[in-house]
Amino acid sequence: MGRPLVILSGGLDSTVCMALAAAGGGGDSDASAPLAVTFDYGQRHRVELTAAAAVAAHYGAEHLVVPIDLTGWGGSALTDATIDVPDAIDGATHGDSDSGGIPVTYVPARNLIFLSLAMGIAEARDADDVFIGVNALDYSGYPDCRPEFVASFEATAALALKRGVEGRPVRVRTPLIDLTKAAIVALGVETGAPLHLTWSCYRGGDRPCGTCDSCVLRAKGFAEAGVADPALAR
Amino acid sequence: MGRPLVILSGGLDSTVCMALAAAGGGGDSDASAPLAVTFDYGQRHRVELTAAAAVAAHYGAEHLVVPIDLTGWGGSALTDATIDVPDAIDGATHGDSDSGGIPVTYVPARNLIFLSLAMGIAEARDADDVFIGVNALDYSGYPDCRPEFVASFEATAALALKRGVEGRPVRVRTPLIDLTKAAIVALGVETGAPLHLTWSCYRGGDRPCGTCDSCVLRAKGFAEAGVADPALAR
Repeated sequence: MGRPLVILSGGLDSTVCMALAAAGGGGDSDASAPLAVTFDYGQRHRVELTAAAAVAAHYGAEHLVVPIDLTGWGGSALTDATIDVPDAIDGATHGDSDSGGIPVTYVPARNLIFLSLAMGIAEARDADDVFIGVNALDYSGYPDCRPEFVASFEATAALALKRGVEGRPVRVRTPLIDLTKAAIVALGVETGAPLHLTWSCYRGGDRPCGTCDSCVLRAKGFAEAGVADPALAR
Repeated sequence: MGRPLVILSGGLDSTVCMALAAAGGGGDSDASAPLAVTFDYGQRHRVELTAAAAVAAHYGAEHLVVPIDLTGWGGSALTDATIDVPDAIDGATHGDSDSGGIPVTYVPARNLIFLSLAMGIAEARDADDVFIGVNALDYSGYPDCRPEFVASFEATAALALKRGVEGRPVRVRTPLIDLTKAAIVALGVETGAPLHLTWSCYRGGDRPCGTCDSCVLRAKGFAEAGVADPALAR
């Protein structure tokens, strides 16, 4: 039996995924400790890398930080210093957009790239499941968070990997995909996830800005769950 | 109209792809100069990075070298110094293997990772076509060189990208996929590809070893095409 691999950004969603994977959420009751994988992709909110390390340490998990610089070609407010991170509009769940409701914080192919790297690592390290905290309900309108993308990716990866040829494809686990942000907060509390260690803000300041898309979504989630955000008490 | 993006390793196949893309092989007769993308993934045959730069320069193409270190988790003779690159067995097209005919030079998820990154770059740089020199005939038995993988990847990428949502997915072009190595050599000669600049050997020496899977496949291709390998005359 392999262990679960968790794509851990240090944010709320991936930390709840970590809690689920650590609890054997891969369907394997005696799962070994998760392997946490964090991508250092040149994101302006680099403080999330520190948060990811703290979350991994909380679980005593091996933590692999993979440098993959996505800033070399631009295309996103998160990786291009010349594009500002917008405020969320009127508390809506979609940020400013220049195309089809997809906000400027969209990073071209980010989840495709992250999942692909995770698949390579999973195969090399014999992990059976890759957890990713994508969410298609209270989300930012990114196409690579939709269940149809995830299902298609899983099938593609099975064709790419030796493990797929051998009839034991690596599964992609998206336990949060149908949950509201409030339900994710509640699940985090229920599973004892270290929410106080997480970071969600897209901006790079010392404290969450409170007004970007990610901050607004997070605040809405905690409010609707009736839980005080422990990260704001730091 | 966007320009073609070519995944350029500096080897024979990707250089012929470069020639085809430069000639408007994307189906667009007035295509602009290709964008060449090379992945510096910690490969032991680092001399291919120099070859890629020379090929890109030959075409006056913009050349993006993307560092993506695949050595951090091992799993391949090409990225793990503790695993030797085997000699080709009896001149067969498959190398030494520990599983299902897949050789130890297989890098877990390599083409999945490279194509995913290429998709992100294509979207950010408005390229309509991504060329990759995969070949499913005279090849090394890598699952991520098969046409079923490429077709599935293209569909997955369309779901991941903003361009897909907008109804103008980035295409994956595999002009060599059904060709023998001899036919690729002939096509290279026909299109004036700078074959003298290319590097194929998996080992890291100053000159091609002549005995690894990649060298044997290359030699067989040139021999069957009746062409002297210009790279050996260097």
